[in-house]
Amino acid sequence: MTKMMMIDGLQYSQWSREVFEQMRSGGLSAVHVTIAYHEMCRETLQNIGAWNRLFAQHDDLIMPVHTAADIDMAHQQNKVGIIFGFQNCSPIEDDIDLVEIFHQLGVRIMQLTYNNQSLLASGCYEPNDAGISRFGKVVIAEMNRVGMVIDMSHSAEESTMQAIALSQRPIVISHANPSFFEPAKRNKSNRVLLALAESGGLLGFSLYPFHLQGGPDCTLDSFCNMVADTVDLMGIDHVGMGSDLCLNQPLSVLEWMRNGRWSKQMDYGEGSATNAAWPKSLSWFENSADFPNIVAGLQQKGFNATEVEKIMGGNWLALCRSGFGPQSGQD
Amino acid sequence: MTKMMMIDGLQYSQWSREVFEQMRSGGLSAVHVTIAYHEMCRETLQNIGAWNRLFAQHDDLIMPVHTAADIDMAHQQNKVGIIFGFQNCSPIEDDIDLVEIFHQLGVRIMQLTYNNQSLLASGCYEPNDAGISRFGKVVIAEMNRVGMVIDMSHSAEESTMQAIALSQRPIVISHANPSFFEPAKRNKSNRVLLALAESGGLLGFSLYPFHLQGGPDCTLDSFCNMVADTVDLMGIDHVGMGSDLCLNQPLSVLEWMRNGRWSKQMDYGEGSATNAAWPKSLSWFENSADFPNIVAGLQQKGFNATEVEKIMGGNWLALCRSGFGPQSGQD
Repeated sequence: MTKMMMIDGLQYSQWSREVFEQMRSGGLSAVHVTIAYHEMCRETLQNIGAWNRLFAQHDDLIMPVHTAADIDMAHQQNKVGIIFGFQNCSPIEDDIDLVEIFHQLGVRIMQLTYNNQSLLASGCYEPNDAGISRFGKVVIAEMNRVGMVIDMSHSAEESTMQAIALSQRPIVISHANPSFFEPAKRNKSNRVLLALAESGGLLGFSLYPFHLQGGPDCTLDSFCNMVADTVDLMGIDHVGMGSDLCLNQPLSVLEWMRNGRWSKQMDYGEGSATNAAWPKSLSWFENSADFPNIVAGLQQKGFNATEVEKIMGGNWLALCRSGFGPQSGQD
Repeated sequence: MTKMMMIDGLQYSQWSREVFEQMRSGGLSAVHVTIAYHEMCRETLQNIGAWNRLFAQHDDLIMPVHTAADIDMAHQQNKVGIIFGFQNCSPIEDDIDLVEIFHQLGVRIMQLTYNNQSLLASGCYEPNDAGISRFGKVVIAEMNRVGMVIDMSHSAEESTMQAIALSQRPIVISHANPSFFEPAKRNKSNRVLLALAESGGLLGFSLYPFHLQGGPDCTLDSFCNMVADTVDLMGIDHVGMGSDLCLNQPLSVLEWMRNGRWSKQMDYGEGSATNAAWPKSLSWFENSADFPNIVAGLQQKGFNATEVEKIMGGNWLALCRSGFGPQSGQD
């Protein structure tokens, strides 16, 4: 029996050999990893430098992904392909040329905002949504040109609708769930999800407890019901996984994600002053080795083999195949 | 008749379509271009961004060189391959990881110093030569590992001898002449040139008037005599061209080269307070279109076709072929 192609559309763990081994034992052939939240250009290069060391140290386990063919190779060699992504546009600072330069360094996915207003668009925590800015419009065109996928996971609704309309290539919401399942600020309305699907884009389902009905007590059955309902809405070709797994990270990293350098007062993001810490993990998804539980849950729910493979990785692979190269004349 | 492979081992002109057309009409298949003198990391990325635009705007004339095969391709397609190089180590700042990151962005040659003491070695204008520093040693090993060629054109003698000894792969002096021809601080002793040749390295002959006997009045015959004398010393396989052509640059650029940000008082480098400007150019080498004059001069001097081709580009091509890839086990 051939191994299923499985791809996780977002992780930000404290990287270690153990974490990479969990990815492999869970059957993942590729993972989209976050390499910057609030880092500016120079700091991001430092993060890429650290990844170059990880690639050298663990070359039996992981390899960089620059094209979808690299994911195929990782799959064949029983390795985990690593796809670089930014959760914010801070690394490109105010410089459009940095889109291509980071693409040259392997970055293939970039969020236009992380919760707050950015130079490009509004984040999902802003009270007012200004849509895509002037700089945002030319950055979208540049990302389209070089083959860097636009990710609107942490963006506000109108900004997201505009990004879908402006982008000439499919975009993603790499890690979020439908608002109908759990009305978190980070989850997405049916309006957004339908526009995303119609434009050929992809939603990665989040396993971060704040995005789930019942939080850390959400059952596998409840999660799989949500998947089924979303497939009914968006179609089987436009959904995937985006676990948002953040393993072994200290509280300081959560605070960095939420606060960066932008506020002197602690912002608790999806948490609160009385619930400031990392959420408890799901019993059926503690780390990447538990992906087979989700496969079993989807099978249980009645998805056939082809459908399960699309949800678990096939759709992400197709998106990477069409999204990571330079724009062709037909796009 | 097939076109001769011609490579210029250093230029820093104000880049324009006209300059690229002169390169092509002079028969060059590749040029090592300087993309940083005193720029730090972030500024260097800006320079790479500017080059990415030039590549897009002039893709009928120029193309980036990441491997020697790219030079072959440029030669076949009648384009000019562009090899990125740093004249200083300022772009890597204090971070060894930036060697690999800039290699990923196409940088293939780096000088360890530019006239002054650097974090890696001593420059040729320093009164004391401390040799290769602790950081310098590990950077040399890292450059060897990734395939970035060490260039000691602006370095002091002892530093250069140590770099030749420490490097496991051949190094270059991309643009300088022998001191026996003209005793400029930037020119090199027979001791250095012999060690360079014995280690498989390469000297690129400079056409910058300050490095020539008679300055701007140096004749083609005198230049070709120097080439012949140097070939007698180093052998025919270890010399090439490195014109140091700086075309259409304002005085402010010369002052940036000489002064960077390191002194409040003007340093005149190879010039002086009464001779502060760019030198007058040679009558027989005003720009890249004049390379055929040098071919003719070498033929006149009695070099045969094979020898002329080695000097004009064959030796540079061989060095690029062995030097630009990752280090093999045999190196």
